[in-house]
Amino acid sequence: MPDTPATHSDRVVVLAHGQFPGRAKTAVGVLKYSDSDVVAVLDRERAGTAAADHRSDLPDVPIVASMDNAPAADTLLIGIAPIGGGFDESWRPDVRTAIERGCDVVAGLHYFLAADDEFAALAAEHGVSLRDVRRPDPDIGVAGGRSATVDADVVLTVGTDCSVGKMTVALELVDAARERGVDAGFVPTGQTGIVIAGWGTPVDRVVSDFTAGAVEAMISEASDDHDVLFVEGQGSIVHPAYSAVTCGILHGAMPDAMVLCHEAGREVVHGYESFDLPPVPEYVDRYEQLAAPVHDSEVVAGAVNTSGIDADGEARAAADDYADAIGAPATDPIRFGADAILDPILGGR
Amino acid sequence: MPDTPATHSDRVVVLAHGQFPGRAKTAVGVLKYSDSDVVAVLDRERAGTAAADHRSDLPDVPIVASMDNAPAADTLLIGIAPIGGGFDESWRPDVRTAIERGCDVVAGLHYFLAADDEFAALAAEHGVSLRDVRRPDPDIGVAGGRSATVDADVVLTVGTDCSVGKMTVALELVDAARERGVDAGFVPTGQTGIVIAGWGTPVDRVVSDFTAGAVEAMISEASDDHDVLFVEGQGSIVHPAYSAVTCGILHGAMPDAMVLCHEAGREVVHGYESFDLPPVPEYVDRYEQLAAPVHDSEVVAGAVNTSGIDADGEARAAADDYADAIGAPATDPIRFGADAILDPILGGR
Repeated sequence: MPDTPATHSDRVVVLAHGQFPGRAKTAVGVLKYSDSDVVAVLDRERAGTAAADHRSDLPDVPIVASMDNAPAADTLLIGIAPIGGGFDESWRPDVRTAIERGCDVVAGLHYFLAADDEFAALAAEHGVSLRDVRRPDPDIGVAGGRSATVDADVVLTVGTDCSVGKMTVALELVDAARERGVDAGFVPTGQTGIVIAGWGTPVDRVVSDFTAGAVEAMISEASDDHDVLFVEGQGSIVHPAYSAVTCGILHGAMPDAMVLCHEAGREVVHGYESFDLPPVPEYVDRYEQLAAPVHDSEVVAGAVNTSGIDADGEARAAADDYADAIGAPATDPIRFGADAILDPILGGR
Repeated sequence: MPDTPATHSDRVVVLAHGQFPGRAKTAVGVLKYSDSDVVAVLDRERAGTAAADHRSDLPDVPIVASMDNAPAADTLLIGIAPIGGGFDESWRPDVRTAIERGCDVVAGLHYFLAADDEFAALAAEHGVSLRDVRRPDPDIGVAGGRSATVDADVVLTVGTDCSVGKMTVALELVDAARERGVDAGFVPTGQTGIVIAGWGTPVDRVVSDFTAGAVEAMISEASDDHDVLFVEGQGSIVHPAYSAVTCGILHGAMPDAMVLCHEAGREVVHGYESFDLPPVPEYVDRYEQLAAPVHDSEVVAGAVNTSGIDADGEARAAADDYADAIGAPATDPIRFGADAILDPILGGR
């Protein structure tokens, strides 16, 4: 599939200084979902503990203070993204050491490591690659309207808002499908998903005219290797700022089925609180009607983020209410597993 | 409004070698709609004639063979855009002469004149500017959802497909509104409109996450100077490749009213002929429902391109049929003037 799947089957060290696990979304995602072998987490404030000490759903990977203390590895992955996407100079010794030890370095920052004079020279000297996944492929172009013709089934996670869990739901569905023996693949569209998957195009960073084309190119590539593709959606179709990306992903992916993601209790647009979210049932029609002229698609299941609800019983009730609202099976895939919504998504496969 | 409105009130020479007027959309647009004074067209194949000899709706501007034969001017504008957006080396002597004569040069090409070593050095030497309008402003960012709060009324042209006349309709509406004494402004979103207007951001070229933000920034800027803004729409909401830009412009502009543009007889997506256009009446609901969660907006009028119909009577009948289909007044603004649809658009202003 990708020619340089940096984190696939590699031994990976994940940098997450001072932010693990609560503010290290990428690091946690790699630990939970990546196919590669995470051998250590770098967090100088939590050195001596293990990832599993902090979150029970994470593997028993050691946390060490610096690259000097890390075991043998092939890749250093920057697993945190500061606001603004800058490079924290306190990370420089770890990146330097990694390169000197022959590791590739993967980052999803706005600051491109390959444009850093010291890192570029050092990487050339040691024959390793610096992969800035936020830099879009310059070959991306306009869509041809061809995603419906690929052999794989395409499932897209769509949302009632941004930051409701569309990436995580897609990753959970991939895992659940694989457990059933289905050859499922993940198609990332944002830098966190790309770092986790080790390949992909940041669809939110491409030229706007190429939004659908960027998704189409990834689906074309991934469909050769998998029977079902789970595409990470972004934003929402009612979002004042990000709806363009949402719409481009929908028409570029031409999904056979959609999973509507929501956060229980959310009523206004995150970060744009003067904008009310429409009632949940309306979203089903909105997404299906927007998809239809390009490709018929149905919301076949729902995923609701209940992390703000303490009691499991209440969370289950919230999921049931959500299922009623959208007229399709729904669950919280993180809390209760994704298997419960897999049947309608796989469509008897 | 813009700090360097290159073609406003300037004396402008428009380059259109070999393509005037049929394949010189930008040159024709500047001649018809620009506020600046076009003093000559460059077309070596038609030198010695005048623009009005080729199209009756164009002014009596002389066509000359090269910049050496052109009258005094402040600006040379590249008025044709070859497929691929390249620079034709046969234009080099004209650009060189223009710079040496102290003219600014404005272009909407993918090839940036400012990145051409010879032109850059020559421009520095002669103190003129090279304005590549296709290069987006690096300061553009995400939308804040603020366009509805500007003092000006905002009218957006939307379409049943791409290439149905959304830019031209917006420009005709600006002219018609000004004839009624309304202070109307044009907000361009593509390179042709930008070259005609002398300012603007190519919304189809910005980072996809900034699509709505790019429109919002222009509306914020232009609303200080005008009472009514006519925003150039792009693509269509059912387009397999370009719907992202359409959606971003709609939510970024937060229009008070929309004008639905269509080409009479078109039934499939231009360039994507395996995709049928939905029935025309459906578009009214599609655009209004897509707009509603961000800002309530109505399709108040229609514009139909009847250039493929010879007889005026048939064209009028097509416009009447179109008005019935969308349930709003409609005309062909190029053929019959835009005044007939201005009342519902201006809303009693």
